[in-house]
Amino acid sequence: MDTTDGPPPVPVFFLSDSTGISAETMGNALLIQFPELRFERHLIPFITTVAEAARVVARLDAAMDAGVTPLAFTTTAVEEVRLELHQTRCPLIDFFDLHMSRVEAILQTPGQRVAARLHGVGDIKRYNTRMAAVEYAIEHDDGQSLRALDKADVILVAPSRCGKTPTTMYLALQHGVFVANYPLVDEDFDTDELPGSLRGLGSRCFGILSNPARLAQVRQERRPGSRYASLEQCSWELRRAETIFTAQGIPVINSATKSVEEMSTVILQNFGNRKKKENP
Amino acid sequence: MDTTDGPPPVPVFFLSDSTGISAETMGNALLIQFPELRFERHLIPFITTVAEAARVVARLDAAMDAGVTPLAFTTTAVEEVRLELHQTRCPLIDFFDLHMSRVEAILQTPGQRVAARLHGVGDIKRYNTRMAAVEYAIEHDDGQSLRALDKADVILVAPSRCGKTPTTMYLALQHGVFVANYPLVDEDFDTDELPGSLRGLGSRCFGILSNPARLAQVRQERRPGSRYASLEQCSWELRRAETIFTAQGIPVINSATKSVEEMSTVILQNFGNRKKKENP
Repeated sequence: MDTTDGPPPVPVFFLSDSTGISAETMGNALLIQFPELRFERHLIPFITTVAEAARVVARLDAAMDAGVTPLAFTTTAVEEVRLELHQTRCPLIDFFDLHMSRVEAILQTPGQRVAARLHGVGDIKRYNTRMAAVEYAIEHDDGQSLRALDKADVILVAPSRCGKTPTTMYLALQHGVFVANYPLVDEDFDTDELPGSLRGLGSRCFGILSNPARLAQVRQERRPGSRYASLEQCSWELRRAETIFTAQGIPVINSATKSVEEMSTVILQNFGNRKKKENP
Repeated sequence: MDTTDGPPPVPVFFLSDSTGISAETMGNALLIQFPELRFERHLIPFITTVAEAARVVARLDAAMDAGVTPLAFTTTAVEEVRLELHQTRCPLIDFFDLHMSRVEAILQTPGQRVAARLHGVGDIKRYNTRMAAVEYAIEHDDGQSLRALDKADVILVAPSRCGKTPTTMYLALQHGVFVANYPLVDEDFDTDELPGSLRGLGSRCFGILSNPARLAQVRQERRPGSRYASLEQCSWELRRAETIFTAQGIPVINSATKSVEEMSTVILQNFGNRKKKENP
């Protein structure tokens, strides 16, 4: 029963012969363009046989008869499964269909058209790197261990609660980047130098800042009423951190205005460029 | 200089007015169908003005003239930026173009066609939940804290090194699921019961297993030559864990044959179904 105002939500189905991550990512990139509508999302992954596809078709057709016209996105690659899904009366956006033929034509190579899975040494190597990076990130989260900091590709430096940790995890998990993070504490603000354990590693550092009101709000949730969470303390730490970053030529990102995905993208781009400068 | 055998890599460009995550995800879902080819991937995110798009076109055209025909994927939404990108001579797969018009027709609503950003209370709420879930995951990683286990949506239970941690992080970061994980240790294997701190929480538990050879290999990397890493010990722990999971009716996933993304998808599907059973 729909109790909120506005039109009823549109049922959206993401269909895949694998996890459905591509269908969801791409489908949501389109749906985000309709902020005034509400969607009721259903993921149907691992559709690998025609029989399963037929059951999905029945489910889509039932949704079709339930009132609000639904919408389905599919990235299924296997031809007979794909064709079965196309039997539905529900509007179906097939991300694979059209694009695959074009990519085949451009590459002048037939695609395998099999259910997407990790395969090939490159994929497995990359996968193992991502998993190792997650472990490294956890060991080096919030300055827990300053061992092997020189193994870090990237070191995120920031006052406490500026958003280092989720960004660290995202870079590790999605991109296999070895990220350590270093929380700036009061004594680090005494000079404009980098803290001792980061000396000589400046070229791998990225500074994260926030705005004082936002930072104070986040800290209040953790330690309500503390000096640590006061607007004055937050402003001071952010000003001092900014001074250090500027003095040391460390690039800065503001987490108050950027999502974890956006910060990660900026870091990766910057990281690539700095690497190129070091090894031109 | 290409020093490995085989044809030179195909330059692939992922173009976006935002992070490029959709373009990469969807583009790679197509490229994975060509395992015999090699690709040299370039991400060009945050293309938000016509002037920037013109610079990208120059870069694509230069790649076009460099020998191997490149391939570009775009998810850019802003009309004038999109049109400028289409000026390139490089083959361009536009995920937005065609699909957007179809989605608009199906939804009978014009899409905003603006650069994708978090907007809307729903998105921001979901974003904050994801960030909180990452924090929770870190606090509850590897049984570090058994406080607030009852706040967990999902508890991953497994012998050490079966892949709990990356799966935990993935579920938290991408899906905002509160996941704790619990490493089974020798004393937990004495009975077929769940360990004390998990009693009464069985309906939130998922067991992760691996195969003995794989587990021994992973443990060897951590503690070479130890009893902990021996094939015998690994086999025993996996057998005992399986017995406990079966006795307690806890669903099991094998991390030796599934990626973190696949495990997460199975857990999310199962989790949804179990919730429905509890609150039908």
